[in-house]
Parts: sequence; structure tokens; C-alpha cells
Amino acid sequence: MNTQTRKATAIAFPNIALIKYWGNRDQSLRLPSNDSLSFNLGDLRTTTTVEFDPLLTRDEVSIDGHKVNAQAYERVVHHLDRIADIDCGERRGLSECRSKARVMSNNTFPMGVGIASSASGFAALTIAACAALGLKKSEPELSSLARLGSGSACRSVPGGFVAWHDGYATSIATQSHWPLMDVIAIVASRHKTVGSTEGHALADSSPFQAARLADAPRRLSLCEQAIANCDFPLLAEVIEQDALMMHSVIMTSQPSVIYWVPATLSVIDAVRDLRDSGVPVAFTIDAGPNVHCICEAHAVKQVKQAVRQIEGVTDVIESGVGGPACVIPHS
Amino acid sequence: MNTQTRKATAIAFPNIALIKYWGNRDQSLRLPSNDSLSFNLGDLRTTTTVEFDPLLTRDEVSIDGHKVNAQAYERVVHHLDRIADIDCGERRGLSECRSKARVMSNNTFPMGVGIASSASGFAALTIAACAALGLKKSEPELSSLARLGSGSACRSVPGGFVAWHDGYATSIATQSHWPLMDVIAIVASRHKTVGSTEGHALADSSPFQAARLADAPRRLSLCEQAIANCDFPLLAEVIEQDALMMHSVIMTSQPSVIYWVPATLSVIDAVRDLRDSGVPVAFTIDAGPNVHCICEAHAVKQVKQAVRQIEGVTDVIESGVGGPACVIPHS
Repeated sequence: MNTQTRKATAIAFPNIALIKYWGNRDQSLRLPSNDSLSFNLGDLRTTTTVEFDPLLTRDEVSIDGHKVNAQAYERVVHHLDRIADIDCGERRGLSECRSKARVMSNNTFPMGVGIASSASGFAALTIAACAALGLKKSEPELSSLARLGSGSACRSVPGGFVAWHDGYATSIATQSHWPLMDVIAIVASRHKTVGSTEGHALADSSPFQAARLADAPRRLSLCEQAIANCDFPLLAEVIEQDALMMHSVIMTSQPSVIYWVPATLSVIDAVRDLRDSGVPVAFTIDAGPNVHCICEAHAVKQVKQAVRQIEGVTDVIESGVGGPACVIPHS
Repeated sequence: MNTQTRKATAIAFPNIALIKYWGNRDQSLRLPSNDSLSFNLGDLRTTTTVEFDPLLTRDEVSIDGHKVNAQAYERVVHHLDRIADIDCGERRGLSECRSKARVMSNNTFPMGVGIASSASGFAALTIAACAALGLKKSEPELSSLARLGSGSACRSVPGGFVAWHDGYATSIATQSHWPLMDVIAIVASRHKTVGSTEGHALADSSPFQAARLADAPRRLSLCEQAIANCDFPLLAEVIEQDALMMHSVIMTSQPSVIYWVPATLSVIDAVRDLRDSGVPVAFTIDAGPNVHCICEAHAVKQVKQAVRQIEGVTDVIESGVGGPACVIPHS
């Protein structure tokens, strides 16, 4: 019996979608109803080590040193099985697809404040697991695999500005192309949120989802144009409209969900006031109450200062544009 | 020269739309892009006296004892001309269409807090002017005429629950059919608002307006069904979705307008919490930040108590369902 462990560590960054995806055309394959566009948040980081160990009798999964709950555990185990199945396929004849694994993941950003860790988590998990198993996969293949764990994880595989067309995501501009910043206004919410997996499933119940999807190519194209030309006014207009369109769909779904809280509107208002006074800042909002204030790098201090003063904003986190997910050597 | 004055006084009530109209298919004729449904707010009242006086050299228009601004003045004068033109048509041969008029209008509800007075104002003005001129007009004719002054004014002409189909509005249920109450949470707004006339003109710039219009017959039909059966859960679902759909269109118009303020969301949240705990209350929101909490009469105290406590709510005004606009005798 081979008792050698196979181990690798990868890092990945969360991403903020500028053109959102909402709704899946295939829920189990996490194939989205519309293309989306994001950039990686390079100052927030998930580091994940996967170690396949023949001596383990059960998979072990920890995030930030704590065992994960049953639902998260099953999702990770299922993803490891999926990757190991590929390995089996490539090395037919093994009696057992994989050893059990020890998965240790750590985030540099706080959990439970509404910054999704599933994107960076499944991107890092995918890359570390493939590396540990010695699987040579292309970036599109890794992006596709990550997608099966968590839809938006596919966007955390390539670097910089990233477009997700159907099965996988690719970089459309490098990390250094446009030094945008994301100033994230964390706002307190007393509600348990409706998870995005559940939310996606509701998308088609909104009378607006079909119109949102039909208009998505226009928004994506405008956003790509804004990025290509570093055109902030165009970026501001299209990303705010896109975010408002997603939240419109969510609010008008049956049942209706409202992710915003009063402070969400206060930040929206402050962002528009800043922009009216000439500051290059615009908002986008994921499936939660936090407001991502996207700004040009030179405006970041002014934006942070304005946002910090707002009642209901409990924390402000900032990040620039990040690179691709990658394997890191063990120290 | 005939120096006799011709004078009449009418009362009318504002109305709250349960199915909103937003956008006109003919802006100058104020023909709406979709049918709508409302009830009159019988505890809020506009009383308007119109006195055509051959000795006047200029129309005089006052609301609550104050001369109105130039824009409002022109709108009233134009409406009087329009009504007098009908009079001319009916009594051909007059050298002059009308004498100048003294228009005195008084509201029992505060101005400038976002309860539209144009609906009750133009309904009362229309009925008083027609009565003063001795014009015999049917309710649909009066409703059509009122519409030309202010779209939603056509809904303040008939009594009780009212549906506006294209040119004019008709009553679909009497005032006493279902004792609903409107508890209006007035919230402070630091913004000058975008007027609804201007807002209607933006409607078609939203990628959602076509879908909103296409779905309107479904919502109208469900709302009519809810009213016919006094089915509060159905009413709650459809009126909240309808209001959220209108605000979605407004937020995603180009340029984007957001009428909500933080307290708007606080009230929405409180309403949904109350309903989750069994209280028959639902919200609707006109083109402004105030929240209309529509509830069954027995729940009004509980709703008022909850809403009053909310930060940012500066006043609470309540009203039951009202009757039709009508001429009242002079004391």
C-alpha cells in the first residue's frame, strides 16, 4: 500500500462582478443564464492546502482553523470526488479513485461579512487538488472545474479583468491594465440572507429576468468597452444599471427578496453624490447588503473617508485588482 | 355685459394606486402605457371653489391661501381653458370663451410631504369648473377631463376602488366593500424629487419597462380578484410586486432615479416583519420615498405603532377608503 501523501497549496482571490450573473440555465452544472464580467480582488486572499493522505479514513475540511459545517463539508468532498474522478479517468485501473484528503483553507478577509469566499475558495481548492494529484490542466479546464464547485469561482481562476462566457472564464485585461480599487462598505444586516444558490433558483420567477437576460449582451459589451478604454463614466453607468437590474429581479421574484438594508441606500446615495462632485466612483452590489464602491486608484482615500462616516457602515475593506489563482511552493 | 359670477365648489380625494401606472403612450393626452387600479383616500380631502367673474382681468389661483407658482398657475389656467372650450363648443356664438376665474383650493393634508395633491386637485378643479359653467358631464367624461390635467386625477373622480382603463376610470367596488386603511409613513428626504411628469417620460429608457407593461394585465387581474374576494394575502403579494416593479423601472432608467431613502427600506422591512407575524399589512410606494402601508382596518393601530417608531419616519397619516369627487352646496 502506498502511504505517500500528495499535497499542494494554491492561492486565489475573490472577485467582484461588474456585470452580474443571476440565474442558471443548468442548475446542476452551474451553467449561467448570462455571461458576466469581474475583476479579482488581489488584496483579499484565500490560501488552500489539499493533502491526499492514504492513512486518513475520512476527509477533513477546515476554514480558518475551524471545521466547516455539514453542508460546506459535503460540497468540498463532492468537489474532491469530481476532481479525483478525472484523475481516475486519466489513470484507469486504480481500484480506488482517491485517498481521503486534508483540506485547510485560510482567508485574509473576514468571514460572515458578506464577502463571498466560495469563489476564491473553490478556485484555490480546484487548483490545489489538481496539483496534488499531478493533473495537468489548462486554465480554461481549471476554470470549468472550479465552476462546478461554485459558479463564480470560475472567474477567480484567470487574472485581472475576467469575462465568463458560458463554460469558463478568461482574462480580458491584465491586472495592471487599469488600477481600479474596490472600497467595500460592510453594512450590518440583522437578517439571515437568502444564499445565492437559492437566489439563482428564484431568478426565473421574476417578470424581469427574461428582459434582464436579453439586455445582458449590451451591458457586457459596454463594460468591455469601458475597460478597454479605461472609460470611467461609461463604466459607472453600466455597472450601476447592471447591479440595479439584478436587484430588481431579486426584489420582484416570487417570493420577493430584498438584500438591501437602509445603510445600503445611504452608501449608494453617497457614491452618487461623490460622482456628481467629480470623484470617479460607482457602486455595485452583490447578493447581499454590502456596497462595493469601485473607484480609480487616486480617489480611494476620498471614497474611504466618505463611506466610513455613513451610519450603518461597520467596516470598510479595500482591494486593488488581483492576478490569477496559482499554486504556491511549500515553505 | 353680464357681470354675474358663476361659481361652484367640489371636493375630491387623493388616491393611492395599488397597481401603478408609469409611462404614457401619449404624453400630451396623458394616456397611460398601462391600466392601473387605486382607491380614494377618504380622510384626506381637497376642496376647490371655481368662480368665473367677468370683472376679473386675470385668473387667480391659490392653494391653502397662497398664490401658486408660475408652473402650477399655467397648468390650472390651461385646464380652465380646456373646460371652457368645451363650453364654447356647446354654446356656439359666444364672443369670448370664458370669464377669468378665481380658483381657491384647500387641502386637509400637508403639502410638500409627498402626498400628491395633483390627483385630488385636478379632480376637484374639473368638477367645480364644469359645475360653475353649468356643463352636464357624465362621470366618465369628468374622469377623462380630469386626466388631461393630471393623469392620476381621473382615478379620483369615481368613488371607492377604481380602475383606470385607458381614457378614464370607473369604480370597481364601493367605498364600503372592503374597509382597507392606508397608513402613510412620511419620511424625510433631503433630495429634490424628480417630478412624476418627468419620471413618466423616462420610463421607456429602462430595459424593464416593456416587460413591466407586458405583465401589467396579469397584475391588474390579480388585484381585481383580491379586491373582489377581499383576499389580503393575494393583495399583499401583487401590490408589493407591482410597486417594486415600478421602482425597478425607475432605478434602471437612463438616467437612473432612486426615490427611496434609508427609512423607506426600514418601513418596507417592518411591514414584511408585521405580515410574517400575521398582521394583514402590505406596502406600496409612489414616485417618492414615503411608504403607504395598506392594511385591514382592524390592524391599523398595530401598524401605526410599529411605523411611528422607525427612525426617519417624520409623520404618519392615515386614511380609509373614500367616495367619489362631488359638488358640494355653498354654505
